[in-house]
Amino acid sequence: MLTNLLTNLLKINYPIIQAPMAGGITTSNLVAAVSNNGALGMIGAGYLSPAQLQKQIREIKELTSNSFGVNLFVPNDFQVKEDEVDIASNLLHQFRAQLNIENDQSVIPEKDGALKAYNEQIEIVIEEKVPICSFTFGVPSIEIISQLKQHGIILIGTATTVVEAMAIEELGMDAVVVQGSEAGGHRGNFISSHEESLVGLMSLIPQVADQVSIPVIAAGGIMDGRGLLASISLGAQAVQMGTAFLTCEESGAHPVHKEAILQAKDEDTIFTRAFSGKWARGIQNKFITEMQEHEAEILPFPVQNTFTQSIRKASSSQNNKDFMSLWSGQSPTLAKNETVEMLIQRIIKHAEKG
Amino acid sequence: MLTNLLTNLLKINYPIIQAPMAGGITTSNLVAAVSNNGALGMIGAGYLSPAQLQKQIREIKELTSNSFGVNLFVPNDFQVKEDEVDIASNLLHQFRAQLNIENDQSVIPEKDGALKAYNEQIEIVIEEKVPICSFTFGVPSIEIISQLKQHGIILIGTATTVVEAMAIEELGMDAVVVQGSEAGGHRGNFISSHEESLVGLMSLIPQVADQVSIPVIAAGGIMDGRGLLASISLGAQAVQMGTAFLTCEESGAHPVHKEAILQAKDEDTIFTRAFSGKWARGIQNKFITEMQEHEAEILPFPVQNTFTQSIRKASSSQNNKDFMSLWSGQSPTLAKNETVEMLIQRIIKHAEKG
Repeated sequence: MLTNLLTNLLKINYPIIQAPMAGGITTSNLVAAVSNNGALGMIGAGYLSPAQLQKQIREIKELTSNSFGVNLFVPNDFQVKEDEVDIASNLLHQFRAQLNIENDQSVIPEKDGALKAYNEQIEIVIEEKVPICSFTFGVPSIEIISQLKQHGIILIGTATTVVEAMAIEELGMDAVVVQGSEAGGHRGNFISSHEESLVGLMSLIPQVADQVSIPVIAAGGIMDGRGLLASISLGAQAVQMGTAFLTCEESGAHPVHKEAILQAKDEDTIFTRAFSGKWARGIQNKFITEMQEHEAEILPFPVQNTFTQSIRKASSSQNNKDFMSLWSGQSPTLAKNETVEMLIQRIIKHAEKG
Repeated sequence: MLTNLLTNLLKINYPIIQAPMAGGITTSNLVAAVSNNGALGMIGAGYLSPAQLQKQIREIKELTSNSFGVNLFVPNDFQVKEDEVDIASNLLHQFRAQLNIENDQSVIPEKDGALKAYNEQIEIVIEEKVPICSFTFGVPSIEIISQLKQHGIILIGTATTVVEAMAIEELGMDAVVVQGSEAGGHRGNFISSHEESLVGLMSLIPQVADQVSIPVIAAGGIMDGRGLLASISLGAQAVQMGTAFLTCEESGAHPVHKEAILQAKDEDTIFTRAFSGKWARGIQNKFITEMQEHEAEILPFPVQNTFTQSIRKASSSQNNKDFMSLWSGQSPTLAKNETVEMLIQRIIKHAEKG
């Protein structure tokens, strides 16, 4: 029962995908360890430059001959007014003061630059013959889909509701990740609103499975063999797990981030736009709490992300969890600090018994 | 696999509990049909007077000799100031005008009255030898627990987080319903805040199952055999289903309410305090939308509930869904209009295959 059409398509032994967590978590060691252990390793390439992406793909090829994938952020349009930028920027000064760092002059990222980088990332995925490419924050254009498919690359979209999953199938993509409200990190909604997108997996998986014929991959709060079996019962063909891999030894997550997850309770995570301008689930900390009253002063993604970069960086280098983005799904009490091999074996042993 | 310690304890054939939906939905016909078909029927007695409760228990005993249960609301303390009451009351006048009904002079319910009614409900449960009693909105006192246990009544608590489930076990109750964020109707949180309580079942079931040793009953978005099998995989011994029974022929829900669920999509439900003063999930309609900007003017439960009663009643009698509380979980697309027997048989056939 653990192999199916999707595992055949992705050329993996087990229906487990390591979520493409961006921001330094998906080291080459993590991705290769996942793929070497029969699951699918994924590079979270959202914040990587084309050159960094190419370098990492080549590193991973040295470490594994198995299948792996790349995840890209579809660039979003955004509008910012100068006075809004000034207000948001000034608001962030108080946090720099608390971290004893100087006020930087953050620059609004260029829209053309983001689009150019994305197109170059696509070129690299093709050149390097990466077997699988997934997308979040939207869907690629028909032209890009057609180009990637011509090169035999398997395409996976990310949906938070039935309507988004149907849009992904309609575009001819090969599979859909359904992101439940339990999921840590950024929300992938692109048609539905944030509020509409908060559907729990117990509801989301069967409703999507009834409406699309492409394979469904469940994501959100899944940590062990119980979550895998449940997802399959509900109609998924595989699971995508983030938090469970984040606390693994091979992950590049900051030790303070790993420890925060290992200490957290089920009710300790919250949605915030404060770090990046896009809604994401993480463990509540000082930055989230203090920004709650300034919801109206948060800039859109990716501008807010650029503006908080020095704060997150300083907080990390000071081993201070107060201003770091401690992304986590809703099942932190099920997280363990172990190797990728131990995690995957633990899941498979349970699932084969069940 | 469908019978276990909990089904033995509750004296039922199948690990399925009909959620105790209050407000006229759990007719004697519904409760008896569920129990006669091997699952557990429950009276949602939250809004019933002691006399009404006694009458319904006796009716059900005429219709079934199988096990059934009663659910009670644990009375909450509340504070209201006269000027707040005036503001809230005036705010509601515009909705009465839209329904062409006169402004009533709603009276603030007496706290002593609610407590007295609750104590009388407990007496009736004991006198009528109801085999199972569950509680929402909190936990009963040690005295009441001890009294009910002396009479051999099985006690079930309702939790939304691990800490609440642990509190229920600590009090010596026999089982715990874990209400996921997917669930329709009122939230049962009593220690955790509303925001903290919104944990999806994929996360909630295994985390609770790891921390308590009493049986776990999963509730929220479960509609069919897929949800039952998934819940069992995650560590539950049974499921409690609301929306799935609400649209059944035997349910007392208003036809407009049933139809609204049958037409709704996964993303159409929302949390609101506008109807009762307590957070609850329902299908978004005009009343919810128009009250969203008046969040600060909503009175606490049960005062708001009393004040909106004439509005909900008029909306129902005019077959107008705009001002009715259209409670629904997050899986409305899986709802069907069928008999209780058809629903239960459909679930069991799927689960026995799985």
